[in-house]
Amino acid sequence: MDGVLADVYHRFFELHEEDFGTRLTVKDIAGLKEAEAFPNQIKWVNSPGFFRTLPVMSGSQQGLKRLNGHFEVVVISMATEFPKSLTDKQLWLMEHFQFISWKQMVFCGCKDIIQADIMIDDHLKNLDNFKGETLMFTQPHNMNITNHRHTRVDSWAEVENLLKSR
Amino acid sequence: MDGVLADVYHRFFELHEEDFGTRLTVKDIAGLKEAEAFPNQIKWVNSPGFFRTLPVMSGSQQGLKRLNGHFEVVVISMATEFPKSLTDKQLWLMEHFQFISWKQMVFCGCKDIIQADIMIDDHLKNLDNFKGETLMFTQPHNMNITNHRHTRVDSWAEVENLLKSR
Repeated sequence: MDGVLADVYHRFFELHEEDFGTRLTVKDIAGLKEAEAFPNQIKWVNSPGFFRTLPVMSGSQQGLKRLNGHFEVVVISMATEFPKSLTDKQLWLMEHFQFISWKQMVFCGCKDIIQADIMIDDHLKNLDNFKGETLMFTQPHNMNITNHRHTRVDSWAEVENLLKSR
Repeated sequence: MDGVLADVYHRFFELHEEDFGTRLTVKDIAGLKEAEAFPNQIKWVNSPGFFRTLPVMSGSQQGLKRLNGHFEVVVISMATEFPKSLTDKQLWLMEHFQFISWKQMVFCGCKDIIQADIMIDDHLKNLDNFKGETLMFTQPHNMNITNHRHTRVDSWAEVENLLKSR
């Protein structure tokens, strides 16, 4: 969800500028972990409403809607690290992805228990232990990862293009 | 979680008496689905705080703590049907089962996507599609089910007894 459907970096850049007066760019933080790039990240994600008001990732609504017509889509979000985010995250998903029913949602603390055919995710910690096909959605923190078994996708257009013939 | 760790029927009996003035017994409702046994069930579970204040199932704290020392325990709860229950459910779990970390929690709308070795659950809709070993935890709604592939367990003592030698 975060980094694939929800554009967390868009908000991180805004909040960093608010807190420090400096507008960072993707180039400034490429390859850094989120907490390395943004010293106040933990404070922000623990703030009430942070996950309720995130912007939607470009192309994700149309892209996921099309996939939803051809695959059994389940949206899985690491969420239990921040208990107060759980309801916010579901309400956000219900607002922006109305075609995803409550039966297609999972909020968890570890994705290792998930069994499926394809995973689209930005984090190696989720992709590396997944037994099916893995698409690594490009985000600043994973930009410098190379020579990996995961198929890199830079945008929702690329996700759609890759999966449309299945 | 509900019907295995959280004693929802205990609360249903109380609320039914409050609403209708009649104290039902397990015998009165054996074999009935929850919504058949309790006409106001949907109203109750949608009430703010319902899942935050449920009583703990007898023996479940001690039982799950012991299992947690020998197995990789994950607590999985059908929760997304009631979005406002999500945070309440996690806070309840954190209060009563402090040895279960946020990494061991899953809140979802369908358990079919879960891959594990053993499932302890009271509902056939969850147990029937599970590929591993299944323990059916006795609750009034499943009391009349016989000749089934699931191993029936009537209490946490039975769960512990069955799994202690593994």
